[in-house]
Amino acid sequence: MSEKNLIVGQSGGPTAVINSSLYGVVAEGLSHPDVIGHVYGMVNGIEGFLNGTVLDFQETLPGEKLAYLQHTPGAYLGSCRYKLPESLEDPVYPALFKKFEEMNIGWFFYIGGNDSMDTVSKLSRYAEKTGSDIRVMGEPKTIDNDLVHTDHTPGYGSAARYVASTVREITLDACVYEKKSVTIVEIMGRHAGWLTAAGALARKYPGDNPMFIYLPEVPFDVEAFLARVEKALNVNCDVVVCVSEGIRDASGTFICEYDNAVGVDSFGHKMLAGCGKYLEHLVHSRLGVKARSVELNVSQRCGASLLSATDQQEAVAAGRFGVQAALKGETGKMVSFVRHTGEDGSYSMTCGLEDVNEICNAEKTVPAEWITPDGSDVTEDFIRYAAPLIQGRIEVPLGKDGLPEFVYRK
Amino acid sequence: MSEKNLIVGQSGGPTAVINSSLYGVVAEGLSHPDVIGHVYGMVNGIEGFLNGTVLDFQETLPGEKLAYLQHTPGAYLGSCRYKLPESLEDPVYPALFKKFEEMNIGWFFYIGGNDSMDTVSKLSRYAEKTGSDIRVMGEPKTIDNDLVHTDHTPGYGSAARYVASTVREITLDACVYEKKSVTIVEIMGRHAGWLTAAGALARKYPGDNPMFIYLPEVPFDVEAFLARVEKALNVNCDVVVCVSEGIRDASGTFICEYDNAVGVDSFGHKMLAGCGKYLEHLVHSRLGVKARSVELNVSQRCGASLLSATDQQEAVAAGRFGVQAALKGETGKMVSFVRHTGEDGSYSMTCGLEDVNEICNAEKTVPAEWITPDGSDVTEDFIRYAAPLIQGRIEVPLGKDGLPEFVYRK
Repeated sequence: MSEKNLIVGQSGGPTAVINSSLYGVVAEGLSHPDVIGHVYGMVNGIEGFLNGTVLDFQETLPGEKLAYLQHTPGAYLGSCRYKLPESLEDPVYPALFKKFEEMNIGWFFYIGGNDSMDTVSKLSRYAEKTGSDIRVMGEPKTIDNDLVHTDHTPGYGSAARYVASTVREITLDACVYEKKSVTIVEIMGRHAGWLTAAGALARKYPGDNPMFIYLPEVPFDVEAFLARVEKALNVNCDVVVCVSEGIRDASGTFICEYDNAVGVDSFGHKMLAGCGKYLEHLVHSRLGVKARSVELNVSQRCGASLLSATDQQEAVAAGRFGVQAALKGETGKMVSFVRHTGEDGSYSMTCGLEDVNEICNAEKTVPAEWITPDGSDVTEDFIRYAAPLIQGRIEVPLGKDGLPEFVYRK
Repeated sequence: MSEKNLIVGQSGGPTAVINSSLYGVVAEGLSHPDVIGHVYGMVNGIEGFLNGTVLDFQETLPGEKLAYLQHTPGAYLGSCRYKLPESLEDPVYPALFKKFEEMNIGWFFYIGGNDSMDTVSKLSRYAEKTGSDIRVMGEPKTIDNDLVHTDHTPGYGSAARYVASTVREITLDACVYEKKSVTIVEIMGRHAGWLTAAGALARKYPGDNPMFIYLPEVPFDVEAFLARVEKALNVNCDVVVCVSEGIRDASGTFICEYDNAVGVDSFGHKMLAGCGKYLEHLVHSRLGVKARSVELNVSQRCGASLLSATDQQEAVAAGRFGVQAALKGETGKMVSFVRHTGEDGSYSMTCGLEDVNEICNAEKTVPAEWITPDGSDVTEDFIRYAAPLIQGRIEVPLGKDGLPEFVYRK
């Protein structure tokens, strides 16, 4: 049998479209029955694969159910946070490749962020070193949008659409009373502020809420923040501020850690409530106004009702493109996105390939020139960058119970 | 001029459909030009009206923009939390009615919950006492669903749809890793557990997550909770629990207040992080498993992307019905919802009228027989009650920026 099989896994935190990339890989894999035999999924990533948990997509998601992956959040295959050993001499590598051989694997796909690309890097280098002809490819995924050598990443557009829509709604909710109020919206992103910056897309006109946006890229100055909010309350009755969970002061201390000063719970554990809660109390105490905080939390990465159609279609495209490239013999590459801007400013995207070794240990933050000099907002350049990525709505099919119908691994 | 004018206001916390009720009142009002002259809105409720802030709907929302109210969350007219004095001898009453007279008001509508119905009660009693022919009517509104003498309230269905959909997505997000985990979802509802109970609608089969649901109607026993969660972790790798923000223990202390034991912030203020955060730390400390908490927060009441079409249509119907009733001479009434269940179990609803005096100082909680004997879940009766209320999806129009387009008071 000259036919080989394809295997795909998911790794790291879930996003709203990690299963769309999975759909792209699986659907494209199944469309080449002349060269690709089975399309397998590893359950709980490389860690699960080591324990032998594998499924066959033609059995588990036959027919039209496969397409349901495109609107199912989470990670259909399950995920893991497993780091392969640095030394390629480690016995885990021959063990893995023995399993690949037993399953007659010709193509290995891994969908994830930086850490997952590290796995792709190591496996592709081991394959090269040992003369294995297994093609090892990476599919990008992260709501943080922090991968280098790609214009953006699948997962970011939907999370950004969630943030923009929700911040717009929170602003409506915040302004119903005549009483002055400050609302702090805490958004995911420990090191990179891309997602928090998407709060700026909620504005309907210049000067609209959210009036300030604070990213982890710039040291957060608590006194300057309070002064700005106080001044803004003279103009707007209600001030909405977007802050990244990862904001730090000039000393490098996370703002949420100051909350820590509060003490420990009755079990002796630190109770970190997040920087939003901390700033809420700070604003209330220091400025004497009504303050509230909203942590957008996991809905940012699992909200199906606010999927970006652009993001979803691009995630599928990335999956398909990776399989096509691997069939042409590519290996050790991650699928990347290349942006094209028409003369009229129109947006389009094509897929490219990047050396996975150059991606796995780097991190792309929001460029300094896209942040205003006072560090309290993003510029129009950011808006132009991000706006095309959140476009389009997906109508998720509803089940008999009237709620979104997803697909689940048994 | 025999023609009189209609005025409408909004009061209390916003919901996703309080503006749909407003639309119903205004659209119905404008459809009777033979009897109703202007349709006015009081900005920031009765408090704003006292300060003279009034708008004319034909000027501010002409043409098709009026219909945009039906998908705009928040409170278009702004709200207030203003309680009229108990004594009808208070000078605020003649002051108010003098203003009504100056504006030639014949019909007064107030959209809100218990407290707003208190305003309707007082104004209608004052009108009766003084022989005024102004018709004073209440339109129900609350995500808490706690008004008596009505099957349910506008605002509940959309909030319940938000809770059910989001809990289903959070469950997907929670189960991506192999590691055991507990997720606490904190849901609004200080005294009544209707909204938290809606978490049960997220289940796809019996025994599915959320595995437990805790309402404020039943004393919360921390040790019993921990024992149940520990046992559940033997069956499910990931356990999702819905808790109402208002859960209390047998002594009547809110669970969130125990967090308080933690201490005060650096400004001497109590830092209450909510019962979800408290239980998250408790589970982590006592059971030694990964724990997380998600506070659904204000999106429960302002999320336009998860509007229930049933809720929205009923809110509009309530608005229209109230105007029709007032035109027939009714006063001192709140529009109520009467449920009809077909032989096949099908749901339908008609509007009714209830004496507002019997509504304003009462509160409807989840009946004891709809809560399981151990207090950790709701019964099938609740599911049958709530399921029809969350049905149907609304496609909110998108603006040029690709995000939901709402209407705003300048």
